Amino acid sequence: MARFNTKPLSGTRDFLPLEVMRRSYVLRVVERVYQSYGFEPLETPIMERLETLLGKYGEEGDKLIFRVAKRGEKLARVLANAPDENNIADAGLRYDLTVPLARVVAEYRHRLPRVFKRYQIGPVFRADRPGKGRYREFYQCDLDIVGSSSPLVEAEVIHAGAQVLQELGFQGTGAEGFRVRLNHRGVLRGLMEVVGVAPALEEAALVAIDKLDKVGLGGVRRELEERGISAQATQALLALLEAAPQDVAACLAWLAEVLQPSKTGSQAVSELEQVVQALAGGPAAPHLRLDPYLARGLSYYTGAIFEIEFPGLSGSGGGGGRYDDLIGMFSNRSIPACGFSLGLERILLLMEERGMFPDHLAGRPQILVTQFDAATRPASLALAHRLRQAGFTVDLYPDLDRYGRQFRYAEARGIRYAVLLGPDERARQAVGVKDLSTGEQVEVPQEALVGWLAQRLDTCGQDDHGSPEPASG
Amino acid sequence: MARFNTKPLSGTRDFLPLEVMRRSYVLRVVERVYQSYGFEPLETPIMERLETLLGKYGEEGDKLIFRVAKRGEKLARVLANAPDENNIADAGLRYDLTVPLARVVAEYRHRLPRVFKRYQIGPVFRADRPGKGRYREFYQCDLDIVGSSSPLVEAEVIHAGAQVLQELGFQGTGAEGFRVRLNHRGVLRGLMEVVGVAPALEEAALVAIDKLDKVGLGGVRRELEERGISAQATQALLALLEAAPQDVAACLAWLAEVLQPSKTGSQAVSELEQVVQALAGGPAAPHLRLDPYLARGLSYYTGAIFEIEFPGLSGSGGGGGRYDDLIGMFSNRSIPACGFSLGLERILLLMEERGMFPDHLAGRPQILVTQFDAATRPASLALAHRLRQAGFTVDLYPDLDRYGRQFRYAEARGIRYAVLLGPDERARQAVGVKDLSTGEQVEVPQEALVGWLAQRLDTCGQDDHGSPEPASG
Repeated sequence: MARFNTKPLSGTRDFLPLEVMRRSYVLRVVERVYQSYGFEPLETPIMERLETLLGKYGEEGDKLIFRVAKRGEKLARVLANAPDENNIADAGLRYDLTVPLARVVAEYRHRLPRVFKRYQIGPVFRADRPGKGRYREFYQCDLDIVGSSSPLVEAEVIHAGAQVLQELGFQGTGAEGFRVRLNHRGVLRGLMEVVGVAPALEEAALVAIDKLDKVGLGGVRRELEERGISAQATQALLALLEAAPQDVAACLAWLAEVLQPSKTGSQAVSELEQVVQALAGGPAAPHLRLDPYLARGLSYYTGAIFEIEFPGLSGSGGGGGRYDDLIGMFSNRSIPACGFSLGLERILLLMEERGMFPDHLAGRPQILVTQFDAATRPASLALAHRLRQAGFTVDLYPDLDRYGRQFRYAEARGIRYAVLLGPDERARQAVGVKDLSTGEQVEVPQEALVGWLAQRLDTCGQDDHGSPEPASG
Repeated sequence: MARFNTKPLSGTRDFLPLEVMRRSYVLRVVERVYQSYGFEPLETPIMERLETLLGKYGEEGDKLIFRVAKRGEKLARVLANAPDENNIADAGLRYDLTVPLARVVAEYRHRLPRVFKRYQIGPVFRADRPGKGRYREFYQCDLDIVGSSSPLVEAEVIHAGAQVLQELGFQGTGAEGFRVRLNHRGVLRGLMEVVGVAPALEEAALVAIDKLDKVGLGGVRRELEERGISAQATQALLALLEAAPQDVAACLAWLAEVLQPSKTGSQAVSELEQVVQALAGGPAAPHLRLDPYLARGLSYYTGAIFEIEFPGLSGSGGGGGRYDDLIGMFSNRSIPACGFSLGLERILLLMEERGMFPDHLAGRPQILVTQFDAATRPASLALAHRLRQAGFTVDLYPDLDRYGRQFRYAEARGIRYAVLLGPDERARQAVGVKDLSTGEQVEVPQEALVGWLAQRLDTCGQDDHGSPEPASG
């Protein structure tokens, strides 16, 4: 047989069991927190009509959509007659979870509650050049509230995101914690108005300001000038941004004063004030920081914008904002919306670097029932059933190999206890239990085994389950 | 804006929240049971290299693979020069979870345990004509043990499948239950040998026998004759199959006698005996039935084969078998393997028809905190935080609408209790609680609220969580 390339396709990944368990651990926390805020799960197909996707992500985005080719007759006809990248395809792989949400809101309008709070977790696909931390197939965890303009919506979304990070173990606002940077598109627009950036150059200036983290103040100054913003306006804008107070209340007061001449700016400050008020007392509050620099790249935001920052580290823990003009794209009407997307891959990487995963992850077997010989096999099988009924996760060694080989297998799988049931143990109505973490072996009476193990292991074998009483042997 | 078709692509589905919760409920049971048997999760990409997929599913299968088009320059070159369905694509959507498993086993051979017990749950893609219960994007739930020829492997796989069905509520072997039909490829081959079907016609005869459920004995007889099997062999084969005893032990003894002249058949009976022995005492045992008719379409099986049957209903609850020649396809060696694939879509449909889902599904909010006016908003927010901290799933109404509208929203979302916190309630240090299932409204002192709700609702709001003590107010 020819040699095959058995690596996953460039930009995609295989997740071996330990990696899946870690990802699942995080996703379970995400789901539990999102649900506790009243968000419901939505699932949409991996494949969408090509016309649903095209034109939604700009020209650059269109190029990054994976196209699924037509088949059979339909394909043959196109290939015979001026084929191009679009007419050979009738479907594409979803590029994000927002366009599918907009489609769902249009299609099921009458079946959805008037305020639709949904989360969706799943892979999206972008034909980007693969690189460190940049994949062609990667997960998004999206949280959106559709149908309300209330500032409570921003607060719910931000709190839910912050609480996920807290429950994963990111505590405080220091090196082990996170900050929630908050701003408003209208604040940025107001600032430009008061310093005299021409409206036509606003978007260009926003892109420049958004790079502050990467290029520093000097870099932003250069970018602004390159983009045609006058030296005077640039100077005034940077001076203002530097002068912004750190404290949330002080910053709001300062913004109100600075933006007083701009109607857009004043309106934005008043909206920000309401969001800040709604955030008081919840999990995000201690992490909150107003940041008039924050621009967030996507031009579709219309109101508050926010981003989770890990102090001193690049790459965000997630971000979002209000985007009132996007969800209605298939509905022929404007629908207010506000969302947050968790930076799952960044968070996983950080948690791995910092050893933040629990020792026992759901999905790992706790006990290996070993095999002695063909005659004792039925007893081994019965023991495995009994331990599973008692709530343990139990692997059963299938072959009649030497114990040494069975123990090595258990170690390789990270199994803590190997249970031995040979003729000697059976004669004494006992089982041998070898602790593979210490190498120690003890003998435990058969009727005491479940209790003995329950003292040392969780039943259910899962971190996200409670601990029901173990069934007595 | 032009009208868009906002339906999901033909053969794909959107799952609205209630459907996702039901699917998740089943998948959580599946995962918990699979894990309790020592199976570990694996995840592979949605996209695979096209050459990994082609030629693995027969000529018919190749046609059903969704191809992902090349992009940019690469595509332009191909389109300009004799494009065909294969050279315009460099990737395909996975068609099943077995070929990816074979690729993973080849690629990570030295990182996997010598016996690799894995499950994988996720969507697969087939460009089939969509029809009732037939989708182009659908979930598979696969369970496989790779690397051992022991009959315990069959037993583990079958028990895990049976236990999933039991835990979902399929009990016994009657109309509300299920049966596990067991056979062996060698038994079928042996039967054909002893009745005189030419070896070259064996596969054709298998296909005919496999249709018994659909076409009945007369139909199978016709199929066999159309496929060139002699009338005499057909007659003898059907007579034998009709004579098979129902009882498992009796059937084994009968098969041993009938197949005594065939070496293949005798070997198969001996292997079946070992599988039956290994199944004794576990969850599948009461459901077991030997069925010498069972052929299962896929020609890659090499040993025991099995299928979950719902008595009186078409469509199976899952099936599998031993397939020792497939997993090694990318490894240049033979690797024994045995697997089971759960019939998820069939099971979900049955559970819906029979009302087998629990009343409260994880993901549904339990409580709506209502809004009275802007002045009471901070108190409402604080109450929502408190209830979430106590472990409830809590939705917060974002807008200042009339109570009637807020209650209708809660009802539409299936929320049981609406909590009211107006100036009157606040003055009395109480909250109003409206039970939306009865319309009754009571007033509960603020400090007693968490306890009051905990008596009526699960904290954590999730069926698959334990019930930790509620935090006191």
